[in-house]
Amino acid sequence: MAGDRLFRYIVVAAAALIVGACIGLAAAPLPPVPEGGADRDTLFQVSTIDALLQGTYDGSMTFDELARHGDFGIGCGDRLDGELIGVDGEWYLIRVDGRAYPVAGNATTPFAVATFFDSDMTVPIDAPMNLTALESRVQAELPSKNLFYAIRVDGTFPHLVTRSVPAQEKPYPRLADVTANQTVFTFENVTGTAVGFWTPALAKGVNVPGYHLHFITGDRTAGGHVLDMVLAEGTVQVDTTTNFTMALPASGDFWTVDLSGDLSGDLEQVE
Amino acid sequence: MAGDRLFRYIVVAAAALIVGACIGLAAAPLPPVPEGGADRDTLFQVSTIDALLQGTYDGSMTFDELARHGDFGIGCGDRLDGELIGVDGEWYLIRVDGRAYPVAGNATTPFAVATFFDSDMTVPIDAPMNLTALESRVQAELPSKNLFYAIRVDGTFPHLVTRSVPAQEKPYPRLADVTANQTVFTFENVTGTAVGFWTPALAKGVNVPGYHLHFITGDRTAGGHVLDMVLAEGTVQVDTTTNFTMALPASGDFWTVDLSGDLSGDLEQVE
Repeated sequence: MAGDRLFRYIVVAAAALIVGACIGLAAAPLPPVPEGGADRDTLFQVSTIDALLQGTYDGSMTFDELARHGDFGIGCGDRLDGELIGVDGEWYLIRVDGRAYPVAGNATTPFAVATFFDSDMTVPIDAPMNLTALESRVQAELPSKNLFYAIRVDGTFPHLVTRSVPAQEKPYPRLADVTANQTVFTFENVTGTAVGFWTPALAKGVNVPGYHLHFITGDRTAGGHVLDMVLAEGTVQVDTTTNFTMALPASGDFWTVDLSGDLSGDLEQVE
Repeated sequence: MAGDRLFRYIVVAAAALIVGACIGLAAAPLPPVPEGGADRDTLFQVSTIDALLQGTYDGSMTFDELARHGDFGIGCGDRLDGELIGVDGEWYLIRVDGRAYPVAGNATTPFAVATFFDSDMTVPIDAPMNLTALESRVQAELPSKNLFYAIRVDGTFPHLVTRSVPAQEKPYPRLADVTANQTVFTFENVTGTAVGFWTPALAKGVNVPGYHLHFITGDRTAGGHVLDMVLAEGTVQVDTTTNFTMALPASGDFWTVDLSGDLSGDLEQVE
């Protein structure tokens, strides 16, 4: 009887432990909502475009850390070694040979923009259009000119032109001087994905106002910074992000670069 | 005996429930690390200064939500009804009568800047100085002109001038037109705390480049937006923040206001 009673104690105690654990889980404080209310609706960026334009090319954040802030994005490699593209949680650098290399998690980026891509709107593309027409078509659908948007274009492109640049050595030249010697790649009848952002004028100097797109082929082997394209057919998806977060480098050249000027001229040259 | 056994079952089950709940709490997933890696080193802001300058005065975030992003900050009330100041986790609106009113958690702000204040540096003030001299003295100590800093001044002020403005009605006038009729308060030999930020030029249009300070008396009864001051003695503490987060209004006038222009002239008038 004593053993039977002990067994019953154990059964009740074990059941209570399980129930208690469940209650405990339910009663545990909820994790705090991330900055800005909703992590997935935050556009996250490393450094500023005006710092990059002036040659601040030393990486300040690892790709492992960047991936905590998004599964989708663009940017560049440490020392400007490649055009960065992230799609469906896979991140690649398109180096100056035009080929896509998966990033090393402990490698760093001096400038990147990322978000978790959740499509809020699909813009149907039912007739072939060039980049200018495509950009106008999408811009007409944006609910406000004062928010940030992630843009994803999946489709077939009769013509698409990209560029990449080689790794730089110190003392770093300005970005406009680097892109003056960029390597250009022309794709014909390629399928793939263009990834990027539409940035509002309010972020001038911080990011690239208007569109900034990078491209990767469907087989994820090649791509680059988009210079021109014709989209034959495909889908454009848009993710509206109302929150914006910027991680500024905690040391290095960023601390002393002059960010008070207007670099619109430089930006026009490099884009 | 049956009752005694039942009692023992209940005691064991209750004890197991408590233990289980504790295990449950310990086993609950850790909250995700906030945006930018460290919540306390993030400068958080609601909307942009250029939107406010153009009359975007409808509140878009509650003070309860704002308090989740900082225990220290400045801003204004819904419809421009009062100058906001937050210090040591207590938030007040200094209304046009010059008096400090604790904020209602469910009331909203159209523009605010907040952080969790952790002093990284103390600037000793060993001789009386006016606002210009004080600002130069502190600016000389800032490690970089490209980061955001929270500034806290506790001291005795022989002379201090603040302002506040009344609540506005739609159609809202521009901020420069509102401050042209601001109410000015002059304090003599007052002790208290000035709270605010030093913003880098890179955030022009988004926030107020340079200093932006509000004041509240030691007894937390009066204050306003700082127009002038002489500090006799006190301490200036500086909190360096490398991360910046901006929550843009998800609806309302912000969506249509023109944020593409240069409003430096307006800003100079209102500051």
